[in-house]
Amino acid sequence: MTKHKMPILISDANTLKYQDGQVEVLDRRKFPFEREWLTCTDYEATARAVEDMVIQGAIGVAVAAGLGYVQAAHTARKFSMDKRRQHLQKAAERLRNTRPTGQRLWVLIHELEQIAEKFGGSADLEERLLQHVQGYLAYFDEVSRETGRHAASLLDDGDTVLTHCYAAGAILWMFHFAREAGKQISVYSCETRPYLQGAKLTAPSIHEMGIPVTLITDSMSAYMMAAGKINKYVTAADAVAMDGSIANKVGTFLHAIAAHAHGIPFFVLAYEGVDPNINTGADIVIEQRNADEVKEVNGVPTTIPELRAEYPAFDVTPPEYISAIVCANGVFAPSDIKNHVMVEKRPTGESN
Amino acid sequence: MTKHKMPILISDANTLKYQDGQVEVLDRRKFPFEREWLTCTDYEATARAVEDMVIQGAIGVAVAAGLGYVQAAHTARKFSMDKRRQHLQKAAERLRNTRPTGQRLWVLIHELEQIAEKFGGSADLEERLLQHVQGYLAYFDEVSRETGRHAASLLDDGDTVLTHCYAAGAILWMFHFAREAGKQISVYSCETRPYLQGAKLTAPSIHEMGIPVTLITDSMSAYMMAAGKINKYVTAADAVAMDGSIANKVGTFLHAIAAHAHGIPFFVLAYEGVDPNINTGADIVIEQRNADEVKEVNGVPTTIPELRAEYPAFDVTPPEYISAIVCANGVFAPSDIKNHVMVEKRPTGESN
Repeated sequence: MTKHKMPILISDANTLKYQDGQVEVLDRRKFPFEREWLTCTDYEATARAVEDMVIQGAIGVAVAAGLGYVQAAHTARKFSMDKRRQHLQKAAERLRNTRPTGQRLWVLIHELEQIAEKFGGSADLEERLLQHVQGYLAYFDEVSRETGRHAASLLDDGDTVLTHCYAAGAILWMFHFAREAGKQISVYSCETRPYLQGAKLTAPSIHEMGIPVTLITDSMSAYMMAAGKINKYVTAADAVAMDGSIANKVGTFLHAIAAHAHGIPFFVLAYEGVDPNINTGADIVIEQRNADEVKEVNGVPTTIPELRAEYPAFDVTPPEYISAIVCANGVFAPSDIKNHVMVEKRPTGESN
Repeated sequence: MTKHKMPILISDANTLKYQDGQVEVLDRRKFPFEREWLTCTDYEATARAVEDMVIQGAIGVAVAAGLGYVQAAHTARKFSMDKRRQHLQKAAERLRNTRPTGQRLWVLIHELEQIAEKFGGSADLEERLLQHVQGYLAYFDEVSRETGRHAASLLDDGDTVLTHCYAAGAILWMFHFAREAGKQISVYSCETRPYLQGAKLTAPSIHEMGIPVTLITDSMSAYMMAAGKINKYVTAADAVAMDGSIANKVGTFLHAIAAHAHGIPFFVLAYEGVDPNINTGADIVIEQRNADEVKEVNGVPTTIPELRAEYPAFDVTPPEYISAIVCANGVFAPSDIKNHVMVEKRPTGESN
C-alpha cells in the first residue's frame, strides 16, 4: 500500500499545539494563502485568537479554549490554592465568553473545571487537563475517521463527487479510504459564498492530498450535473433531526434539489449522527448572520453599501432528498436514523 | 399617476452619448461604486473601451461600436472620397475585431457599411449613420419596454420575485409597469458569481427605482423558497431554442429546479424571442470562459493559484421548468414558442 499524503486540516491536532503554557495556532484567516502560526503565551491571547477567528470550526474552537484553560493551570501552578482557584475560574469565564454559540466549547470547559475541582491541589493538574483535551481531540478524530471509512464504501471507482462548504475531516478521510481501496475519485468543490470555505479549505485540502479537484461557483452545480460531470453529492451536516432532516451551510439544500432532479445520490457525513433533542427539520433554528458579509468578499465590497442583504447561515434539507446519513457507527437511511442515536463513548470530566 | 424614478441602466441611451465625433461612455467597470464617464475622442479609443469592458451587454457593445463608426465618418468628413472609404474600412475592421463573439456588433457594423457605401459621398453621412445607430437603440428600447409590459401582467400585488444575473431593461420595465398598475413588488437578487452582475447591476438598479430589493448569494435561493419568501422567479435568456429551452447565465437552471420543486413559476424575459436556427437546448453551445475568474472576486484571489477551476458561462433550462416565455410580442408557453418567431421590424441598412 502506498503512503499517501494527508492534508494539514485533517485533524485539529495538526493546527493546535501546546507546550509549557504556550499554544501555537495555524492562522485560519490566512489559510490557504499562507501557513502562518500564531503563538499565544497566555489564556487571554488564546481567547482573543478564538474571538478573532484565528481558529475555526466547533471542535477546533473547543480544543483551543480547552488549551487556554490548560495555560491558565500552567500559570497558576505556583499560586496558592485560593489564588489558583480564582485564576482558573476567571480563565473559564473568559474562555466561555469568546463565542456566543459555542456549545462544544462550553461542555469541554465544564469538564475541565470538574477535573480542576477534583485535582486542583495536585502537582500534575496541568498534565491531567492536557490529557483530557488530547483525549477529546482523539475522540473526534476517531469519529471523523470512522465516518470517512463508512462513506468511502459508498463511492465507486471513477466517481466524481460534488461537495459544498467544508465537511471537515470525514470527507478527507472518505477520499483517503476510497483511494486506499483503489478507487479513482475526482471532486467538484463549490466555493461556498459568502465565507468561501470551499475555495479556502475544501478544495486546497483535497488538492493537497493529490486528488483531482475543480473549484466552481455555487451557481454551477446544476450545469455540471446536466453535463454528466457529477454522480455523487456529499456534504457534512451541522445538525441531524430525528426525522432525517439535516441542516448544513446554506446552499446544501439547493444542490440537493438539483441532485435529486438528476438522480444523483446525496450522502450526508453526520459524524456523531442524529440529535435526539431535535424532532424535525422545522425545529432547527437557522442562524441569521451579519448580512454585510453578503455584500463583500474578503473585505472587498461587491455592491453599494446602502443595499439590503440577508445571510441565513444554513438551510435544511428534508429526508426525501437524502440517500444516506453516514455516521461514525454506520450508514443509515434518513427514515431509520432515529433508531441509531450514538452513545458517546468519550471519557467526560466526571468520570475522569 | 406618480412620476417614478427610472434607473440609469434602463436604456443604453443613458450610458452612451455621441456629439461631434466624441463618444461618452458610463464606465461599467466602476459601476455601481462610481458614476464615471469616459470620453473617447476617436474610434480607436471607443474600440479600446469595448475591449476593456467599459461597455457591457450585447446591445451596448454593438451601439458603442456603431458610434465608433460614426466617429470615423466624422474624422473622415473632409477626406477625399478614396481616403474616406479607406478610413471607414479600417475603422469597421478595427471595431468588428473588438469582441470575438459580438454577433449583434457585426450586424450593426455591416448595416452601417452599407449606408456608407450608398451615401459615402454625401455631406450628411455622419448624420445618417448616427440616426441609424439611434434607430437601432430605439428599437431595442421598444423591445425591452414591451417585454417588461407583458411580464408585469404576470405579477400580482404582494409578489416577491427572485432574479439571477442582470436581465437588462425588460426586468426594470417589468417592475415599473407593475408599480404603475398599483402592485407592490419586492425582489431578491442573486449576486451572480463570478462576475457579480446581480450585486453590481440588478440590485443597485432596482434599489435606484425605490423598489425593495435584498441581495443574497447564489446559494440562498432554495432557503428563501422553503421559507416562503419568494413566489415568482424571473430571469432573462441569452438564447431561446425552438423546443422552449432557454440558455442564460450559469445558475439560472439551478434556481429553476429549486423553483419547480417549490411550485414557484419561472418566467423568462426573452425580448425578441426564439431563435429559429436553434432547434433544442442541446444545440446551444455553452461558452467556457477563463476559469481564473472563478478563483477571484474583483481581482482578489479566493484560493490558491494552482487550483483547477471551471467556468461555464451559461446553463440550459429545459422547457418543463419554464412557466412562460415573455417576448416583446406576447407571453407564450415554452411548447408554443416555436409558433411565435418574431419578425424584426427594425429598419436595416439595406432598406435605408
